Amino acid sequence: MEIGFIGLGHMGFPMVANLLANGYAVRVYDTSDAAVAKAVEQGAMAAQSLIDLTQSADAIITMLPTPAVVRSVLCVPGGVIANAKQNALIIDCSTSDPQTAVEVEALGAVAGKIVLDAPVSGGVLGAKAGTLTFMVGGSKDGFLLAKSILSAMGKNIVHCGAAGSGQAAKLCNNLLLGVSTVAVSESMCLGASLGLEPEVLAQIINTSSGRCWVSELYNPYPGVVKDAPASNNFAGGFACDLMIKDLSLALDAAHGTRQPLPMTSVSKQLFQLLSHQGHGDKDISAIVEMFKK
Amino acid sequence: MEIGFIGLGHMGFPMVANLLANGYAVRVYDTSDAAVAKAVEQGAMAAQSLIDLTQSADAIITMLPTPAVVRSVLCVPGGVIANAKQNALIIDCSTSDPQTAVEVEALGAVAGKIVLDAPVSGGVLGAKAGTLTFMVGGSKDGFLLAKSILSAMGKNIVHCGAAGSGQAAKLCNNLLLGVSTVAVSESMCLGASLGLEPEVLAQIINTSSGRCWVSELYNPYPGVVKDAPASNNFAGGFACDLMIKDLSLALDAAHGTRQPLPMTSVSKQLFQLLSHQGHGDKDISAIVEMFKK
Amino acid sequence: MEIGFIGLGHMGFPMVANLLANGYAVRVYDTSDAAVAKAVEQGAMAAQSLIDLTQSADAIITMLPTPAVVRSVLCVPGGVIANAKQNALIIDCSTSDPQTAVEVEALGAVAGKIVLDAPVSGGVLGAKAGTLTFMVGGSKDGFLLAKSILSAMGKNIVHCGAAGSGQAAKLCNNLLLGVSTVAVSESMCLGASLGLEPEVLAQIINTSSGRCWVSELYNPYPGVVKDAPASNNFAGGFACDLMIKDLSLALDAAHGTRQPLPMTSVSKQLFQLLSHQGHGDKDISAIVEMFKK
Amino acid sequence: MEIGFIGLGHMGFPMVANLLANGYAVRVYDTSDAAVAKAVEQGAMAAQSLIDLTQSADAIITMLPTPAVVRSVLCVPGGVIANAKQNALIIDCSTSDPQTAVEVEALGAVAGKIVLDAPVSGGVLGAKAGTLTFMVGGSKDGFLLAKSILSAMGKNIVHCGAAGSGQAAKLCNNLLLGVSTVAVSESMCLGASLGLEPEVLAQIINTSSGRCWVSELYNPYPGVVKDAPASNNFAGGFACDLMIKDLSLALDAAHGTRQPLPMTSVSKQLFQLLSHQGHGDKDISAIVEMFKK
Repeated sequence: MEIGFIGLGHMGFPMVANLLANGYAVRVYDTSDAAVAKAVEQGAMAAQSLIDLTQSADAIITMLPTPAVVRSVLCVPGGVIANAKQNALIIDCSTSDPQTAVEVEALGAVAGKIVLDAPVSGGVLGAKAGTLTFMVGGSKDGFLLAKSILSAMGKNIVHCGAAGSGQAAKLCNNLLLGVSTVAVSESMCLGASLGLEPEVLAQIINTSSGRCWVSELYNPYPGVVKDAPASNNFAGGFACDLMIKDLSLALDAAHGTRQPLPMTSVSKQLFQLLSHQGHGDKDISAIVEMFKK
Repeated sequence: MEIGFIGLGHMGFPMVANLLANGYAVRVYDTSDAAVAKAVEQGAMAAQSLIDLTQSADAIITMLPTPAVVRSVLCVPGGVIANAKQNALIIDCSTSDPQTAVEVEALGAVAGKIVLDAPVSGGVLGAKAGTLTFMVGGSKDGFLLAKSILSAMGKNIVHCGAAGSGQAAKLCNNLLLGVSTVAVSESMCLGASLGLEPEVLAQIINTSSGRCWVSELYNPYPGVVKDAPASNNFAGGFACDLMIKDLSLALDAAHGTRQPLPMTSVSKQLFQLLSHQGHGDKDISAIVEMFKK
Repeated sequence: MEIGFIGLGHMGFPMVANLLANGYAVRVYDTSDAAVAKAVEQGAMAAQSLIDLTQSADAIITMLPTPAVVRSVLCVPGGVIANAKQNALIIDCSTSDPQTAVEVEALGAVAGKIVLDAPVSGGVLGAKAGTLTFMVGGSKDGFLLAKSILSAMGKNIVHCGAAGSGQAAKLCNNLLLGVSTVAVSESMCLGASLGLEPEVLAQIINTSSGRCWVSELYNPYPGVVKDAPASNNFAGGFACDLMIKDLSLALDAAHGTRQPLPMTSVSKQLFQLLSHQGHGDKDISAIVEMFKK
Repeated sequence: MEIGFIGLGHMGFPMVANLLANGYAVRVYDTSDAAVAKAVEQGAMAAQSLIDLTQSADAIITMLPTPAVVRSVLCVPGGVIANAKQNALIIDCSTSDPQTAVEVEALGAVAGKIVLDAPVSGGVLGAKAGTLTFMVGGSKDGFLLAKSILSAMGKNIVHCGAAGSGQAAKLCNNLLLGVSTVAVSESMCLGASLGLEPEVLAQIINTSSGRCWVSELYNPYPGVVKDAPASNNFAGGFACDLMIKDLSLALDAAHGTRQPLPMTSVSKQLFQLLSHQGHGDKDISAIVEMFKK
């Protein structure tokens, strides 16, 4: 079985490496020749063109930066959906928006291809370790076909529901991550300003009703969690500008369903202020610097 | 050893019951005669007056509704600090503000009494079960004296630091609880509007970076957590108006240290909107009703 | 000189009437036959098709509901830009977004047509009275050509700058209108809750630094301004859902230039909460109902 | 008629100068001897003590920094209300909170003194020019007595209603000023980021529905209004930290009447962020720096 993989960025490259390590034949495509060459070094085959990859592969995985790029690769006349083999499995792992996923999958169905949305969580570290979570939207049958492939790259493969559900679940989770990061920053900085030791405060929160993933594993107050970005000058991790992208996708999706999201909206604006001050490439926990004395 | 207990409300009454169950002699005072009578039925002694209780007890516990009431009971000429036995231990379990706690404990020190702030978390259920968390501020020596008494009413007794630290820790935790409750409501309602099954979404969040105490144990979306207030018409639990009180105390403390708290501030306003619509006595998870279709 | 007019809604119809009253020959197109028939009664000519109108007119005005519709009418192969006479003047009076305007005008330039963005303020009343303000973006030459036509429908014709500037100016103004409407509502309701007479408070504000167009002419507190929508059950005026659209366009434009807009963002969310409660078709001043006792 | 004046700060000193210029005998008191000496140079008499001033004056004006100081000067046993002449007129021009004003005036009534709250707008420039606005709360009779005295210092003397109404009106106005300052900053910076000339945008806004006192006379975008603080490095004007104080008083008053104020609350937090970054003594228009490229 040959897998076509489109998009060899920070996430795509280690995902390909794990597919290869699990014995899959992988043909790759990227607009960067250097990225392709690096994947070939790991054992991948280089596609001559997008259409070459598309016509050759049994399953195609895309890992692309924005919904617009996803549409331009999958949905145009010379694109993946039009040219893939009949009944090919097309798995879009990009973080996109539910509406795009719904439309892409409808187009796939018309063309006789099985399309799934399968955005990931776990970041670059999870991609390297093969421990990503995949949130999968699309038909149950498609999900069952995709599961073994995705298992080569992740350890938690969840079927969220119909087309678009994977994207919806990812956005719903990530807005919580965004809000929590700001809220834990506020809480820790208020505590510090009132004389509490940050370690003591974190310990109390983590055994109380304020406890969350951010307070426990990703505490934005420097020094509280040793290997968190906040203890490493806010390097690595999840860039502020990427969080702005995800919060914007959530707000756009909410606009579509006329859903109010006040806290999400304020958290986006605060990350935008941080980015505006020149810190868009720092980890999201750098928001703590807006509150810390 | 005789304990004087002042304030027999929803929290104070079961706390007294647990002190009695652990063998303490407890003398009680409340402005409600009915509340006192009920405690006497359980084995408590009724104080003739506040001053009677104060002069008789070796340790005094207060559980009062606002910082202003705390000051009026502890700090006035006829009050507890002025009239307690020399070296008496005075433990204020009310949710108050750090500044009040600092001033009350300073007054206590001048008068030769040991005063601690020891607000609780765990609610009425925790008070009944004797499983409260006590966040204690004040001297280390005072904390060690208080620990065995508090252990009769709770299972997690934490020394947070100097005077006021208990209140500070409680406010820092509770602002996170407030923000999380709104944020999880936004996330769950967005997901539902996009077609996700609430149970599936909650499961995904609870194994991802959006996970928090609220999403796991107190999910505001009706039906997701069986015994949460949201699945019981938002009855019981933590009243919206009490959350407004706690968020206001946090914002006041932040004003004092010139600390910005944007998310906390917006969450207070949203609970205020909910209360304004007539739902101030419902559980905080009722905020989900502002977002749910 | 023949003018083609596309889009005969609440705004378009009275604008056509004013063009006719000023002696212009006007050919009209709308997807609603009834709307076309009504315009013909006023003296307009009915176009057989969009392309018929396009090929016959010397100048074309569009008044359409969304940026997507604008693109579908102007930019497709069978659309207005492709088929208009050489050097035809195309004036888009729709409220759109600056990016769409820039792209549409660039396409026009390539095709040898002069395209302007010229959104309006003044509402249905201004459209009927011929007193609209037109905020015009595009070349200075184009503006000078358009000015006499627009003067038949408005009294304030402003050149804002290059392509997209008209849309930008409109969004910048309307976000202020949105924020002011909420802020005046908060101020008036706080005053009323503190015992101030609304009329007295409005008078003080209107001679002080809180003064604004909303407080003076469009006060959201019922009874303060006699002929404002707030004194007429929030009927007429500027629908909440249209304000949500404009605030969303402003936030999208800000996202494109990475500009933080925290107050704008919160005001959008509050209007979204109002719409969510079923009041999306009421005037924006209905937001006062969220704060009023 | 002798006037006692307590509080010779940036506002109090020029107010005294205007009373003297209008022929009043003025006895002054301040904790700063230098401030008293400077007023004596202008023709004022120095009080030996607060009680000396109190017992000698027919009318007493206070201009003090916080509600707590107001209470400590007016309400204590050795204070102004207890010791003023029977039927003395006591005018508190401090910006305080409505609740304090109500309590102070009730105490005055019990003691047979006429107390008014009369906070001002117009700033130091208005105090020097004698063009302040006085927003007066208290009895109609008291207002009529005070009017001629206040006219020596201001040109707009408004009776707002019963005790506390002056403070209420001031807070309601100033929250609008705070919100407008942020909102105009957002609007101007969005426009600039989209390529609009700031002067052109301001002109459009000022003839449209976004128009407000801030956009017209106090535009926060540097260079738009020549003599505004924004065109003078944000010097002079209304300090950010004073706006935080006024917004906090408004939020506290709203807390008392259970009134939601979401926009006001967010604007306070944004000024707090600005102050946190070290700009608390700059004019409020410096908030534009958070949004400007």
